Amino acid sequence: MKKKHLFTPGPTPIPSDALLAMAQPIDYHRSEDAVTLIKDVLEKLKHVFQTENDVLFLTSSGTGAMDGAVANLLCQGDKALVIQSGKFGERWAEICEAYGVEVITINVTWGDSVAPEAVEAQLTVNPDIKAVFATLCETSTGALHNIQALAGLTQSSPTLLVVDAVSALGADDLQMDNWGVDVVVSCSQKGLMTPPGLAFAALNHRAWEAVERSDLPKYYLDFRKAHQRGLEGSVPYTPAVTLLAALQCALNHICAEGIRPTIDRHNRLATATRSAVKAIGLPLFATSPANTLTSIRLPEEIDGKAFVKMMREKHSVTYAGGQGELSGKIVRIAHLGWMNENDVIVAISAFERGLAEIGYDVPLGAGVAAAQEGLRK
Amino acid sequence: MKKKHLFTPGPTPIPSDALLAMAQPIDYHRSEDAVTLIKDVLEKLKHVFQTENDVLFLTSSGTGAMDGAVANLLCQGDKALVIQSGKFGERWAEICEAYGVEVITINVTWGDSVAPEAVEAQLTVNPDIKAVFATLCETSTGALHNIQALAGLTQSSPTLLVVDAVSALGADDLQMDNWGVDVVVSCSQKGLMTPPGLAFAALNHRAWEAVERSDLPKYYLDFRKAHQRGLEGSVPYTPAVTLLAALQCALNHICAEGIRPTIDRHNRLATATRSAVKAIGLPLFATSPANTLTSIRLPEEIDGKAFVKMMREKHSVTYAGGQGELSGKIVRIAHLGWMNENDVIVAISAFERGLAEIGYDVPLGAGVAAAQEGLRK
Repeated sequence: MKKKHLFTPGPTPIPSDALLAMAQPIDYHRSEDAVTLIKDVLEKLKHVFQTENDVLFLTSSGTGAMDGAVANLLCQGDKALVIQSGKFGERWAEICEAYGVEVITINVTWGDSVAPEAVEAQLTVNPDIKAVFATLCETSTGALHNIQALAGLTQSSPTLLVVDAVSALGADDLQMDNWGVDVVVSCSQKGLMTPPGLAFAALNHRAWEAVERSDLPKYYLDFRKAHQRGLEGSVPYTPAVTLLAALQCALNHICAEGIRPTIDRHNRLATATRSAVKAIGLPLFATSPANTLTSIRLPEEIDGKAFVKMMREKHSVTYAGGQGELSGKIVRIAHLGWMNENDVIVAISAFERGLAEIGYDVPLGAGVAAAQEGLRK
Repeated sequence: MKKKHLFTPGPTPIPSDALLAMAQPIDYHRSEDAVTLIKDVLEKLKHVFQTENDVLFLTSSGTGAMDGAVANLLCQGDKALVIQSGKFGERWAEICEAYGVEVITINVTWGDSVAPEAVEAQLTVNPDIKAVFATLCETSTGALHNIQALAGLTQSSPTLLVVDAVSALGADDLQMDNWGVDVVVSCSQKGLMTPPGLAFAALNHRAWEAVERSDLPKYYLDFRKAHQRGLEGSVPYTPAVTLLAALQCALNHICAEGIRPTIDRHNRLATATRSAVKAIGLPLFATSPANTLTSIRLPEEIDGKAFVKMMREKHSVTYAGGQGELSGKIVRIAHLGWMNENDVIVAISAFERGLAEIGYDVPLGAGVAAAQEGLRK
């Protein structure tokens, strides 16, 4: 019997009403019903983005919105500061380089979070930096970055702060307007509990001014067209309507709970998971772990790739392994989106049993007990 | 009671097994199961593309693959020939211009198809044209273009032929390898009977050589990355896995029928629809109509926008109206994808009744009778 449990930091489990919405006969994207759907979704996304700015959407992976952020905000030869603390920080640099943008990088040890002072120092030395590209939760390591502190550095200067909130939106706090973040990009298959295929961006007025000046080539990823059409409940190109229908269901759940309680729930689940990992006797990988996922450093003697494969194939429990230089060295357990206390207990108890199965000396039940204590609070 | 019928040239109706596949719990895109799924889908797409070349996919609308074709094949300042016979031909020109490509256009009256001699003349005057951008079925008018003749002009020269087969793939014949077409792009929500959100491109060896030389900026739409990862059953960025699962179901239907019988079926449905429209007494809009859809020119006294709106809102029958300069002047009825004889009869009979309802003098039953005769053959 294959009863599956998915604990990857995207895709995340989909609420059953959203799954069933996708099984409905498909509808035309240029109908009045589609206008209502698109307007509703874009309005509810503002609540999740904690912003009064318009949110635009693209039919793409989250990387499409990251690519679009660079292509729409910058000019050829512009200077950008990129915070690299894992695979997704590196992606910002790769995109900038693809467009001929000059990249200054701050390299943070994987698992650590950037020191705002390091960003401040670079902005002082290079006052002509047009934009800082940061990551809310670096999904490859599970590290949370202090976006509020970074916004404190940029909001009174002409430098824009662009935040990849792909995996953390709705799980870790990101107060776009209150903190003064200029651009936030995200996508559907993480905290938004919808299948992959939709990406989002919210820009404030400073960012839209930069868009007006930008001379980098773009067509499909053109933010202005997506924004203008979105305001009319429309799209420049045929959107993934099926995914929009699912997203509407998922957003109804988030808006019913409210974004602050949603983030609080993620914090409770994350805190309980961290307590459990410590009780099992393994170290957390991230210095400042996000609510999105918990990264666990495995002992040398455990082959992380084989462990993740065994858990999936034998027990139908899917965790994520390490990416890039962390391949085989960490396990990543997401507590993201359509997740509650019981899911966290399943994730932890299966992890304990899996470790025992491969012969690792684990105090069975210790992790679960610690999580139970954490969840009682 | 709202029993809906969708006759738009994308999205098209989805087979029920594909709908139900999307309602299954979502799975991780970096699993062995995903590798099997991606490899299977890419292999079956070759059959539909009638090619031995690899097919790559992107998570995007069809326009994403069109954008990618320009960005991946050309260099800044290159000269391109664009055949404009409607909205989607114009899109090729807009994309080229966005990337700084010099565009020569052949403007064809909307509804007509390009004369291959006009293309030949341009290629003679401008032998340095790097690529010809053409459209198999111009969805905005319903016109079919003679791609085989165009390939005859390009295949023995260094000029590449790039074909937008977005709406016509699987409905109108396009023998990529036999005819010598260099690049074919398409997407999921037309003949492939899958929701929008996936785009495809197939390139032959000449096209891949151009990709190696291309200096235009691209990241998310990078064909090389999508191609290389696709060969491993993988992806550079999180794909729309839900749509891939639906696509696998849809491709199983097409491969079971076989691409040649699938195209023949579309031809039968299209021929019957055209006979019906003539029997009703209205003119076809396209000079060389495609199998994908039938465009009908409406009499001056009929407001096409109001007619399409009435048919949807009152009768739950969705046709497409005209786009751009054809807004309100034509009705477009698709017979595309998951469609058989009975669907065509519904489309025609509802059209007849709708015309009668708005007071147009239509011989009720004449269209249906003509279609029945056509379908009996």
